[in-house]
Amino acid sequence: MFGVTILGNNSALPAYDRHPTAQLVTLNEQLFLIDCGEGTQMQISRYRIRHSKIGHIFISHLHGDHYFGLIGLITSMGLLGREHPLNLYGPASLIDIITLQLKVADTTLPFSLIFHPLEKEGLILDHPKYSVSCFETRHRIPCWGFLISEKRNPRKIIREKVIEYEVPAAFYDQLKIGLDYVSKTGVVVSNELVTTPNIPDSSYAYCADTKYTESIAEKVKDANLLYHETTYLKELEERAIARFHSTTIQAANFAIKANAKKLLIGHFSSKYEKLDEFLLETKTVFHNTELAIEGVSYRID
Amino acid sequence: MFGVTILGNNSALPAYDRHPTAQLVTLNEQLFLIDCGEGTQMQISRYRIRHSKIGHIFISHLHGDHYFGLIGLITSMGLLGREHPLNLYGPASLIDIITLQLKVADTTLPFSLIFHPLEKEGLILDHPKYSVSCFETRHRIPCWGFLISEKRNPRKIIREKVIEYEVPAAFYDQLKIGLDYVSKTGVVVSNELVTTPNIPDSSYAYCADTKYTESIAEKVKDANLLYHETTYLKELEERAIARFHSTTIQAANFAIKANAKKLLIGHFSSKYEKLDEFLLETKTVFHNTELAIEGVSYRID
Repeated sequence: MFGVTILGNNSALPAYDRHPTAQLVTLNEQLFLIDCGEGTQMQISRYRIRHSKIGHIFISHLHGDHYFGLIGLITSMGLLGREHPLNLYGPASLIDIITLQLKVADTTLPFSLIFHPLEKEGLILDHPKYSVSCFETRHRIPCWGFLISEKRNPRKIIREKVIEYEVPAAFYDQLKIGLDYVSKTGVVVSNELVTTPNIPDSSYAYCADTKYTESIAEKVKDANLLYHETTYLKELEERAIARFHSTTIQAANFAIKANAKKLLIGHFSSKYEKLDEFLLETKTVFHNTELAIEGVSYRID
Repeated sequence: MFGVTILGNNSALPAYDRHPTAQLVTLNEQLFLIDCGEGTQMQISRYRIRHSKIGHIFISHLHGDHYFGLIGLITSMGLLGREHPLNLYGPASLIDIITLQLKVADTTLPFSLIFHPLEKEGLILDHPKYSVSCFETRHRIPCWGFLISEKRNPRKIIREKVIEYEVPAAFYDQLKIGLDYVSKTGVVVSNELVTTPNIPDSSYAYCADTKYTESIAEKVKDANLLYHETTYLKELEERAIARFHSTTIQAANFAIKANAKKLLIGHFSSKYEKLDEFLLETKTVFHNTELAIEGVSYRID
């Protein structure tokens, strides 16, 4: 299971019961939180998500609509007795803010908060089953996007065949990476007989807040699901440029450049009550688009 | 009109759709915000309050459930183009946190944020029509309560009588403070003929977070409405003491000591889903008690 659940889809000002940015990526049993606007802990409760399962939090930049809910979430985790470590990735100053807020409250967290400052593009988390890398976007202040990739084995076991050829379960992991099995009596079971090619790795690209910038497309090439902001409809392109944000058409053109399989749009300006037009406009250029709607989960595959 | 509207009535953890502490005091055309837990700006929108009317914000202490929503509210006021000054009262470190958060976001507010650090007990705001003073409570970290008083003139004009005795409107303010009117021809109109005694000043005492402390009662004596926290029911008195909080019975006893006309209880622990028991227990000792319910306004008179 690889997917993303939207907890907040609005830009700077909360409006029409839309919340500032927060997204929860589920990757098998892991939960990654990307950005954490004000009220994210309430949204987590509302959608009955177990925040104890969040192991890693990624903060794109230090505009409030992307992190004002972080300190509340962290202190609530502490009040609820969390003991296992929490990894936090974000701009270097983020930890100064949190440290100051904990200090004035005379609060010591009952778990380790492991902070990883974002300083250069590249791999920030590497695990046998997944990896996360960060890349710079173009915003008014330093801002990072995140690329989360599920690592898959190149081969997938055919259950009936491994039984038929009597391959011991202990050898399955080696079959998955393409090795042949040689029995104790020297009989060779060719890998192709007991496995099939697996589907390729999947990836989710979160492009945070950014003005339209083609060069970023290279960094998120071929993403299965690409999240790109559409703060404004196309008629406000000048405003989007001035404020380092993007329009529907720009997000769609970016998705084409990046060769994304699917596009997810969000970070809607609070000037818009209805969102239908966002979807219509974006689809005129990139058809496989969905609106990021709070409480909805989108599969990544 | 003098009253308080509850925006958040819960303690540390948001739960059961109850929010962390925030209260809005209306005094004629003035709005005072007391405490500002996470999500307060959303609560302000939900109850259709015009936050442009908030001129003064009072923060009792730096536990997150009393101020994590402040930076979001302030930056939203800025985004919405507020130009008139905002007065903020709170522990000295509060301004360091706000300043740091504005700095990392490269944000300059379009209005003056005038910070008044709370350093000693006494008057912090004095106006011809009202005053606000602060007093220390007993909590785990320094914590301030607030006493908001409406100043009334000692005398109230009798409309028909001032017309009958031909007192010019320009003299009404002097009548209200008890002076006699002397006409151009030297006729004395005795004050008692054209006025009646006004009702006395009203006051709202907000006791913030505190353990039961009798000596504080002197500071909020005779309040028309006394807000006292009841984080726990009576059976958890030991926990209340250990955590510098209060129980129902303690709040009720405090209200008796303070000779409060009415008691408003809140800051309920998230361990309680239902609040009925809070009211029942408190009323056994102090009958004129109400639960602080979100979205409800309570008159102060």
